[in-house]
Amino acid sequence: MSLEDNAFEITFLPDNVKVPAEVGETIMDIANRGHIHINASCGGEGVCGRCQIELRSGEVTASPGLYLSEEDFASGLRLACRAKASGPATFFIPIESRADASSFKKAAKAEEDLTVTERDPMVKRFDLELSPPDANDNLADLDRVLQALANEGLNDLDVELGTFKKAPQTLRDENFKVRASVYFEPSLVDPSRPAYSRLLSLSKAKLDETYYGLSVDVGTTSVWVRLVDLATNAPMPSIGDLNGQISYGEDVISRIVYASKGEGLKKLQSQVIATINGLLARLEETYPEFRENLLLITVAGNTTMSHLLVGVEPRYIRLSPYVPAVASWPSIRPSFLGLDVLSHTVMKIFPSVSSYVGGDIVSGVLASGLYKRPELTLFIDVGTNGEIVIGNEDWMTCAACSAGPAFEGGGVKCGMRAAPGAIEIFDYEPDVKRHHLGVIGRGKPIGICGSGLINIVAALYRAGVISKQGKYVDNSAPYLRSGEDGLEYVLSPASESAGDRDVVLTEIDIENLIRAKGAMFSGYQTLVEGVGLTMGDLERVIIAGGFGSSLNLDNAIEIGLLPNLPLERFSYIGNSSLTGATLAVMSGSMWRLAQDIRGRMTNFELSETPGYMDKYMASQFIPHTDASLFAR
Amino acid sequence: MSLEDNAFEITFLPDNVKVPAEVGETIMDIANRGHIHINASCGGEGVCGRCQIELRSGEVTASPGLYLSEEDFASGLRLACRAKASGPATFFIPIESRADASSFKKAAKAEEDLTVTERDPMVKRFDLELSPPDANDNLADLDRVLQALANEGLNDLDVELGTFKKAPQTLRDENFKVRASVYFEPSLVDPSRPAYSRLLSLSKAKLDETYYGLSVDVGTTSVWVRLVDLATNAPMPSIGDLNGQISYGEDVISRIVYASKGEGLKKLQSQVIATINGLLARLEETYPEFRENLLLITVAGNTTMSHLLVGVEPRYIRLSPYVPAVASWPSIRPSFLGLDVLSHTVMKIFPSVSSYVGGDIVSGVLASGLYKRPELTLFIDVGTNGEIVIGNEDWMTCAACSAGPAFEGGGVKCGMRAAPGAIEIFDYEPDVKRHHLGVIGRGKPIGICGSGLINIVAALYRAGVISKQGKYVDNSAPYLRSGEDGLEYVLSPASESAGDRDVVLTEIDIENLIRAKGAMFSGYQTLVEGVGLTMGDLERVIIAGGFGSSLNLDNAIEIGLLPNLPLERFSYIGNSSLTGATLAVMSGSMWRLAQDIRGRMTNFELSETPGYMDKYMASQFIPHTDASLFAR
Repeated sequence: MSLEDNAFEITFLPDNVKVPAEVGETIMDIANRGHIHINASCGGEGVCGRCQIELRSGEVTASPGLYLSEEDFASGLRLACRAKASGPATFFIPIESRADASSFKKAAKAEEDLTVTERDPMVKRFDLELSPPDANDNLADLDRVLQALANEGLNDLDVELGTFKKAPQTLRDENFKVRASVYFEPSLVDPSRPAYSRLLSLSKAKLDETYYGLSVDVGTTSVWVRLVDLATNAPMPSIGDLNGQISYGEDVISRIVYASKGEGLKKLQSQVIATINGLLARLEETYPEFRENLLLITVAGNTTMSHLLVGVEPRYIRLSPYVPAVASWPSIRPSFLGLDVLSHTVMKIFPSVSSYVGGDIVSGVLASGLYKRPELTLFIDVGTNGEIVIGNEDWMTCAACSAGPAFEGGGVKCGMRAAPGAIEIFDYEPDVKRHHLGVIGRGKPIGICGSGLINIVAALYRAGVISKQGKYVDNSAPYLRSGEDGLEYVLSPASESAGDRDVVLTEIDIENLIRAKGAMFSGYQTLVEGVGLTMGDLERVIIAGGFGSSLNLDNAIEIGLLPNLPLERFSYIGNSSLTGATLAVMSGSMWRLAQDIRGRMTNFELSETPGYMDKYMASQFIPHTDASLFAR
Repeated sequence: MSLEDNAFEITFLPDNVKVPAEVGETIMDIANRGHIHINASCGGEGVCGRCQIELRSGEVTASPGLYLSEEDFASGLRLACRAKASGPATFFIPIESRADASSFKKAAKAEEDLTVTERDPMVKRFDLELSPPDANDNLADLDRVLQALANEGLNDLDVELGTFKKAPQTLRDENFKVRASVYFEPSLVDPSRPAYSRLLSLSKAKLDETYYGLSVDVGTTSVWVRLVDLATNAPMPSIGDLNGQISYGEDVISRIVYASKGEGLKKLQSQVIATINGLLARLEETYPEFRENLLLITVAGNTTMSHLLVGVEPRYIRLSPYVPAVASWPSIRPSFLGLDVLSHTVMKIFPSVSSYVGGDIVSGVLASGLYKRPELTLFIDVGTNGEIVIGNEDWMTCAACSAGPAFEGGGVKCGMRAAPGAIEIFDYEPDVKRHHLGVIGRGKPIGICGSGLINIVAALYRAGVISKQGKYVDNSAPYLRSGEDGLEYVLSPASESAGDRDVVLTEIDIENLIRAKGAMFSGYQTLVEGVGLTMGDLERVIIAGGFGSSLNLDNAIEIGLLPNLPLERFSYIGNSSLTGATLAVMSGSMWRLAQDIRGRMTNFELSETPGYMDKYMASQFIPHTDASLFAR
């Protein structure tokens, strides 16, 4: 049977695009190949539930799951990232799962970059066939192992206490044929030799015994982990959860404030540790023995998250001159932090550039390839703390700007995080002055998430309902009314909402969004102009972070959040912080590269940079005071 | 006032020897100078109470203490090691505090060797004057420290978690002028560079701030520690205590057996840790802030004690082919073992040669200088497990022999440890067939300690009461009677004893002593003859360990425990295990030397060595079957 015999097509409605497919491909992969955009903020891992599509005809291989009830499933709903083609089929993509497809033509899946060219893991394994001791050779157990490793050229090995405690039992259980796992601490000054080497574990020399690395992205809002089989460098699917610290404050500043009170630091540390431990417990369900064989963890997080994870005083991060306690993290034994891993596991934390440009950005730049490409690239992570990197293979500058919480639904009357019930999609028909809402999870609306806020403001601005100053101007708009905070636009009356209140957009909400987008934009401007270039010189814009995946490029440019560049220059890189951490867990040279990238990034403290405040003031307009910047 | 004006004499009775003295010298030091022997098994630290002497006239500076009650003190008793001369005085040395002075003319005090020529501690300090951060220089705190250390040539520093957690506070408290203490792990293959370096602590850059090392001797019976000021390499007085494990068995074999049952290993570990913690608490009384500044600990112990301290399975030590789990100990963080020290403190344990020649012997050989001298030297540690080293600067062989517990009072009907109430001195007057007893602590006798056993058997053998075969032969001896175990010699009837029983010496006791001394002697013989030499070729005999200090050389030779050599070839080195550990805590090259010594020692398993059993059988005689060996 030839491949052709296998070929069939999947049809996507409402655009009626047909894409050739093969048995076993996910519908998401097929859609991507056909440039059909389906929302998937988790990058296709089946954990965000945002890629729901309706099976109209044909068959696919799929089952209900976390995000699909039996009823949903029976009604034809499928997750595009989980359903696998088994023959011709037709799907309808509902508005909630759709975005402006043209915006994402160049969107890169994070997974595509999860390959390392060099095979140089920080942990290597050595299979040792030792002769059992006898009367003529009663060398001690550990010494026997160390002698065999010395024969492999490994001297002066540090040995983990837990490992040599277990050595007599392991050696005898395995009849003196064991596998030694040795960690090589990368030297930052001499790539030809490790800073030190440590025997982490002795285990069975079974051929099928694997060993693991774990990459962790500790975000202010959520924590993601990915297990990697280091024997084959095969990454497992990532899984995530909300950072348990979230009930102690939504942004880094409120966490720092909490940490400086009484037992606050200890409490925040134990929260994030508990979050990671929960994820480890979930991994254990699929990989029951991974803990024993988990040797290395890499962590990327912003500067504050790294401090809280390790339990280091973050207070000076928010006090001028904004000095973190640690930027280059020494290797740590995570079991001492309370992580449910064995004592031999080594943890490496990505270095920060500054108090507000953290290891997550260094990791993201590593994942993006910005540092090694000739094109002038803007790398941004949009959020309460927005991070900006501009540069190429020759130079990099970076800055953080305090955008405020609007992008995460904060400071917005009906704001909420991008969770089920959040209005994300908003279509406005100017002729009939009517709108259509797309709600995450397809239920009744509860509030507005950050990307929804951008889409709503862009559509209402385009329709002339909102002015350049961010005020409501079309008094004839039927959903406009006077509320307690001035004029407000009723998106969904209480009767049609999940909560018992109207979901509205106030002028204050718009003002907060303008402040936030202006802070980001004036940040890019300051960095670009700081090196004598203009916005038009940017050849590539990489949007990182969970927020980016649901961003409608046209709308983000419309309101002045993103620079006015041809859409094909934009790409979305997903959770680049986790991706970079995954690359480093697989490769010592990737880890050293991260240190190198961090050293090459010149940090600007925007608040101390002349001209920034003027640029910020000029940005407080839709899209900008300088209309030429956004002429299309 | 010239020194002469200060001079006066101390008179020692009963020998009426006068020794010139100066104000402030201890009576012990004055006596040593005059070759007057006063028992002091603790080496003059005031903790064994065995150097009690009577002040007959004059004055000294002294006070009662642990070993002297107010009544004792009022009656004129003083501890020779604690009393200090203040003018002319006369002392009587009671029999209990006396031994054959001639035997100890060459006795070296352990303290005399506590000097290291090379100043190369494993921990070095660097005073850093950092510029405080400002808007133009907001380098992270730890990075600032590491950059300053990199300027001193230190790269790739590992950093102790506790240290960088405290860094922000310490730097600000000290206005960024701090002292960094860096540990350099000695490489065993390349002396030109450390295996790795670790920043242990940041502290005040006060000129008078010192830092400490601690040497520890973990013995089966007792544990000794000595604090060392590493800034000046000044050793503080050592202090000791019984090993808390002692209630779980008196010798290593019974400890190993106990360790292999249930929670036994954990229990034994916590016992010895508690013992050391108790000693640390005592040190704290004198050196209140030493813990913060305690950076390095060196430990010497026999192989079993090292395993139990670290909590490593000792079971294979006693099973053929006698394989320890670990001989070369990796560096350990003792806080993980439960020791009351900060997490930055590093612990280094002396390497063992074999299951029964441990780190205490390696340390002792280091302290003795045997390894660097041309003379053929016999180094022995007499005990239940007797260790023997023979060699010189060119070669060393070693062995352990299982002497049984007689030297420690075990297997002896009225045996006991060398503690108050133990008969230690025994004078026999053949003419009148009467004896005089010297009892430790001067009270009524309770039992017989190991050295007492040797003295009693030697005296009775010399008087013809005991035969070469170890049997009672002079039926006319008045104290001889028939007991339940055959003939026995009544040393002290119940009426004159502290216990409610007669203190006797049975023929079985004598048999056990002959077995024990024979095991030691045939061990020396096997090693000496194994390299083609004879006993007479031994130019030096060094007796190590607590037991040695109370050993009467003439008597030990008389019964065949020590080789028949001129007395001036013998010397006593005290707690050489602690001394060697102290040398290593002061000097990295001393530590490396210990590894080197251990590598140069060829171990013989006596039980597997041809000829040993024959030699052992021939030794079961007083002094030996081959009388020519003991012809005087």
